[in-house]
Amino acid sequence: MRRLSIRHLHITLVAGTIAAIMTMQTAAVAAQQPAAEAMVIERSKILTQPGVFGVFTMFKLRPEWNKIPATERMDSAAEVAKLIEKHKDNVLVDLYLTRGLETNSDFFFRLNAYDLAKAQTFMREFRATTIGKNADVSDTLVGVTKPLNYITKNNSPDLNAGLSSATYTGDAPRYVIVIPIKKSAEWWNLSFEQRLKEMETHTLPTLAYLVNVKRKLYHATGLDDIDFITYFETNDLIAFNNLLISLASIPENKYHVRWGNPTTLGTILNPENVIKALSE
Amino acid sequence: MRRLSIRHLHITLVAGTIAAIMTMQTAAVAAQQPAAEAMVIERSKILTQPGVFGVFTMFKLRPEWNKIPATERMDSAAEVAKLIEKHKDNVLVDLYLTRGLETNSDFFFRLNAYDLAKAQTFMREFRATTIGKNADVSDTLVGVTKPLNYITKNNSPDLNAGLSSATYTGDAPRYVIVIPIKKSAEWWNLSFEQRLKEMETHTLPTLAYLVNVKRKLYHATGLDDIDFITYFETNDLIAFNNLLISLASIPENKYHVRWGNPTTLGTILNPENVIKALSE
Amino acid sequence: MRRLSIRHLHITLVAGTIAAIMTMQTAAVAAQQPAAEAMVIERSKILTQPGVFGVFTMFKLRPEWNKIPATERMDSAAEVAKLIEKHKDNVLVDLYLTRGLETNSDFFFRLNAYDLAKAQTFMREFRATTIGKNADVSDTLVGVTKPLNYITKNNSPDLNAGLSSATYTGDAPRYVIVIPIKKSAEWWNLSFEQRLKEMETHTLPTLAYLVNVKRKLYHATGLDDIDFITYFETNDLIAFNNLLISLASIPENKYHVRWGNPTTLGTILNPENVIKALSE
Amino acid sequence: MRRLSIRHLHITLVAGTIAAIMTMQTAAVAAQQPAAEAMVIERSKILTQPGVFGVFTMFKLRPEWNKIPATERMDSAAEVAKLIEKHKDNVLVDLYLTRGLETNSDFFFRLNAYDLAKAQTFMREFRATTIGKNADVSDTLVGVTKPLNYITKNNSPDLNAGLSSATYTGDAPRYVIVIPIKKSAEWWNLSFEQRLKEMETHTLPTLAYLVNVKRKLYHATGLDDIDFITYFETNDLIAFNNLLISLASIPENKYHVRWGNPTTLGTILNPENVIKALSE
Amino acid sequence: MRRLSIRHLHITLVAGTIAAIMTMQTAAVAAQQPAAEAMVIERSKILTQPGVFGVFTMFKLRPEWNKIPATERMDSAAEVAKLIEKHKDNVLVDLYLTRGLETNSDFFFRLNAYDLAKAQTFMREFRATTIGKNADVSDTLVGVTKPLNYITKNNSPDLNAGLSSATYTGDAPRYVIVIPIKKSAEWWNLSFEQRLKEMETHTLPTLAYLVNVKRKLYHATGLDDIDFITYFETNDLIAFNNLLISLASIPENKYHVRWGNPTTLGTILNPENVIKALSE
Repeated sequence: MRRLSIRHLHITLVAGTIAAIMTMQTAAVAAQQPAAEAMVIERSKILTQPGVFGVFTMFKLRPEWNKIPATERMDSAAEVAKLIEKHKDNVLVDLYLTRGLETNSDFFFRLNAYDLAKAQTFMREFRATTIGKNADVSDTLVGVTKPLNYITKNNSPDLNAGLSSATYTGDAPRYVIVIPIKKSAEWWNLSFEQRLKEMETHTLPTLAYLVNVKRKLYHATGLDDIDFITYFETNDLIAFNNLLISLASIPENKYHVRWGNPTTLGTILNPENVIKALSE
Repeated sequence: MRRLSIRHLHITLVAGTIAAIMTMQTAAVAAQQPAAEAMVIERSKILTQPGVFGVFTMFKLRPEWNKIPATERMDSAAEVAKLIEKHKDNVLVDLYLTRGLETNSDFFFRLNAYDLAKAQTFMREFRATTIGKNADVSDTLVGVTKPLNYITKNNSPDLNAGLSSATYTGDAPRYVIVIPIKKSAEWWNLSFEQRLKEMETHTLPTLAYLVNVKRKLYHATGLDDIDFITYFETNDLIAFNNLLISLASIPENKYHVRWGNPTTLGTILNPENVIKALSE
Repeated sequence: MRRLSIRHLHITLVAGTIAAIMTMQTAAVAAQQPAAEAMVIERSKILTQPGVFGVFTMFKLRPEWNKIPATERMDSAAEVAKLIEKHKDNVLVDLYLTRGLETNSDFFFRLNAYDLAKAQTFMREFRATTIGKNADVSDTLVGVTKPLNYITKNNSPDLNAGLSSATYTGDAPRYVIVIPIKKSAEWWNLSFEQRLKEMETHTLPTLAYLVNVKRKLYHATGLDDIDFITYFETNDLIAFNNLLISLASIPENKYHVRWGNPTTLGTILNPENVIKALSE
Repeated sequence: MRRLSIRHLHITLVAGTIAAIMTMQTAAVAAQQPAAEAMVIERSKILTQPGVFGVFTMFKLRPEWNKIPATERMDSAAEVAKLIEKHKDNVLVDLYLTRGLETNSDFFFRLNAYDLAKAQTFMREFRATTIGKNADVSDTLVGVTKPLNYITKNNSPDLNAGLSSATYTGDAPRYVIVIPIKKSAEWWNLSFEQRLKEMETHTLPTLAYLVNVKRKLYHATGLDDIDFITYFETNDLIAFNNLLISLASIPENKYHVRWGNPTTLGTILNPENVIKALSE
Repeated sequence: MRRLSIRHLHITLVAGTIAAIMTMQTAAVAAQQPAAEAMVIERSKILTQPGVFGVFTMFKLRPEWNKIPATERMDSAAEVAKLIEKHKDNVLVDLYLTRGLETNSDFFFRLNAYDLAKAQTFMREFRATTIGKNADVSDTLVGVTKPLNYITKNNSPDLNAGLSSATYTGDAPRYVIVIPIKKSAEWWNLSFEQRLKEMETHTLPTLAYLVNVKRKLYHATGLDDIDFITYFETNDLIAFNNLLISLASIPENKYHVRWGNPTTLGTILNPENVIKALSE
């Protein structure tokens, strides 16, 4: 009997909440949509704004690539550069070299675009280039940038200040690392306040590495089989190793269902040099 | 001794229940069979009726596809359109473009049919087309639509009303997402009332997204290695990301053995344009 | 000290039991061997007897199959029919069509034989046929039939009677489903009486489906990486879906380490028509 | 404070133990090395001695094998026989037929050798034969035989006597089964006495099967990603199925991280006949 | 209320710690960077210093390798030797033979370099050699050496002394074993003192094997999907098997998420002989 009356109460509360949700939350959702049409691609802006889609595509060359005449392979560098130029108003294209450091890829793209369909079109056209036709996609990660939600000025003023108190001061980063993350149902079922506390514990040991590791975050829940894509650039891989050990040594790590798998480590070159390195 | 007498009681109850089950439940089972023969395919009807089979087939083009002359590749669009026309009284065919957004597929089909064998025949004949012969199946999901069983007018009147109080009002959806789901033995062993309560908690945060995310559900237990196929269309992927975070943040998520793996994200085009995009 | 004396007792019991086991259990084991030599294959008998080996072999056609001239592909139907005829005194051969419904197979065999080596020989010779040479084995399941051990007349008279009180009355089944099962160490460590109780709970909801779903069980522990192969035929896939939901909703499901993975769904045709369908 | 003083005690004990370990245990380790140089291969001896390496290599023929002229395929049987003869002073070679019973292999080798490098050399040379060049390795298991460590005369006299009280009396075994095993950290962290107790419980139900199932054990921890390779020969697969159900139904099974995966079931033929069966 | 005030305290502490961290820890991080530019490769030094990158790359020959003329295959040994010579100021190259002992590889490299990008360049150029073009990468492990952090003179003086009290005295090792390790979130969330205690328990049973097993450790957290790469050389595989059983039998093993998978076992030859052995 008691169970039934609790359920009755539950239903009443539900009924009371529905109307409110139908108006309020819808508005909030709509407010997060970026004004995609109005924007042009500017590197410094698109890499810091919310509402930007990120597509990471890892490629592995097929053995047939080696059978293409060397000059044709080298020409592919210009072909890809031309394609990037063609799409420059729609997609910001970065290319990285992983051959020699990874098993499942030789190079990978990071695309940033206000409209995901535009990134898809770029990638579809890349697949029709000489190198694209001789490579297999080994992994694709899709995410979107969003405003900070935990360590904000309101929620956590000191850590928020800490995050802005230092910037990268090392040599130009030569290395890139991409680590996809999926968190458990237990994590998502924590209250916001509990998750905030864990993210404060997460943020504290990372402050010391602001000077030698750059980071960027994409949200992926529902767009892909992961929750986050974390992207790093550094010139100091030992500092990076220490940073990641710090992040392994806190309670948040217990909520990771997937952290890496794959971790992708590559070197940072301009797109033409990546293709040339693979054409030698 | 006490254990044995409880078992004795158990056996007596079993004996008492069998006759009733043999008549009652059989009738109920039979009643759910759709009158497959009598129906013709009408998009608006078949997409809302129970008793309709859904077959999702993901395809990845083989490298050989690029070696087929461009005109022959382009002709394949008409060949597929003709095949769809030939089967139009038996199967409703939708085709989506995933190249550039997914690792394991370039395009995928959703077939809706009153008779599963008819969907199988369509797919078998597609495999004999030019593009079908140059593509590998990377995933197949089979399910069937059934009447609502949790959030009905009787079980949960307020939420049921909430579900009908809003419809999609966004721009024509450009994106499709397919997410297969398998639930744990613990979920299926909950009482109906417990599962109803969890599904109410599931439904509440989804109401706000009725205006910008369309959804459809297929049941798959025993037909496939999953329990459900969830299908979404939207033009607002950030709203969709927020919706899926909401669904991750409730207790029901703890009963997911599989949620995605793969999540398939594609763009919505008419079938001929999908083939053409892959033929360029 | 107490631990040691318990162990001493344990050892004494062990010593006392060994002689008895060496005579008794060996006899029981020997008694289960079928008189393989004496039997000829008769469909209705071999499909109901214990001591019969079942081999399920799933095949996926290679792309090369499409390059074989159409007439040669069609001739393969007769070639396979002739092979089945040649082995008809040793192996009962069934063939099913999965293309269009499964990712990893296009067709599969079920072989029933009193002598497993004979089934192996048939399959080895099939691999040398035109279609066999152009197909890859994607899965093999090996099991053997045994007498009922839980729901017998002695253990569970009412359920045993229920099982015989109804038979399949639907249209000729058009669909086949094969689901391999592995149970946990916890299951096998339950006492026989506990497992009997769970199997009674398992059997009760299945009674209503005797009229529209046929079933058959093969035991596989040690012969394969599974414990059971469950085989179903039906013409009513919605009833089948309901049956499997019933079986998911009982405690026994908590002991499944593997249930499906893969579930194989196909259509029932005579062997020649399966090959013809794949030759079109 | 109490924690620190316990740690202090711990460190003192450590210090006290190191010198002893450095002399004692090293001697014990050295004593287990077999006098590899002095021995010649004799089947009955090498299959019963400790300190013998076992290499199991599973092979799957590539489709190209079928395109080799039939006479050349048949000649491969003699080529392999000659290779076995060449290495007969270094490696004992057994070959088994799995085509028709397994998905991932068509045949497999068991090599026994006093010197692992010699087994490696044989296998490398096999890879250069006609059949070796047309087959892919699908699995490799490496282990070594060691003296009995649980059910010895001292530890468990009655069971030890039971193990010697019966030998195989069935027909010549026609079937071979290989099952790799990995045990959990929990198993290895049990005390020796606890593991002995579990192995006694393991051994008891196996006694009845001494007459119809032959067994052999290789240890693999650190040499491979498993702890044991269990090898069986039998002519009675139903007895074998019952034996494995017995071994599933004891507490030891709860410590299995991997048991099979793959289980490999094949038929026992002399090497030339295995190759011939695959050449038809 | 109490929860909020604890959180308040937490925030205050956070604020107090940030400034200190920003100066102190950053310095510590920077101090760990090796002076990469200044060093030349010297085997005995690079294999004992911290701050050295290790890249392990496993290769599997494609079937096409057998179709290359035998002399061209043999010439590949000199081609690889020349490449190693060319890079000798940047990378220390070791090559091992796994064909015959492993499923997924035929040979593997261990590269040691002060600058990871230099190791990448070597590997990229190897991929352009005759053998490199005919082999697929089956696994890559990337790590870096660091100073001892648990069993130091300060933390654990007796064990530290034990580690230096014996060195390898066996015959030249003929075998190499590489085992990647990943530890659980629970491990990394232990306090340093708890982990030190577990590592002492880990170290104690390994002392006896200093005389017949050589070891080396690379740290990999964040650089790869593992935490450590453990590398062993031995001529006594039975001693090695005993050592690994010892390491399985301690509590630390319960914190292994991955231990091996794959374990790679090979033989130690000079690079030219590895290629020659694969060219016969």
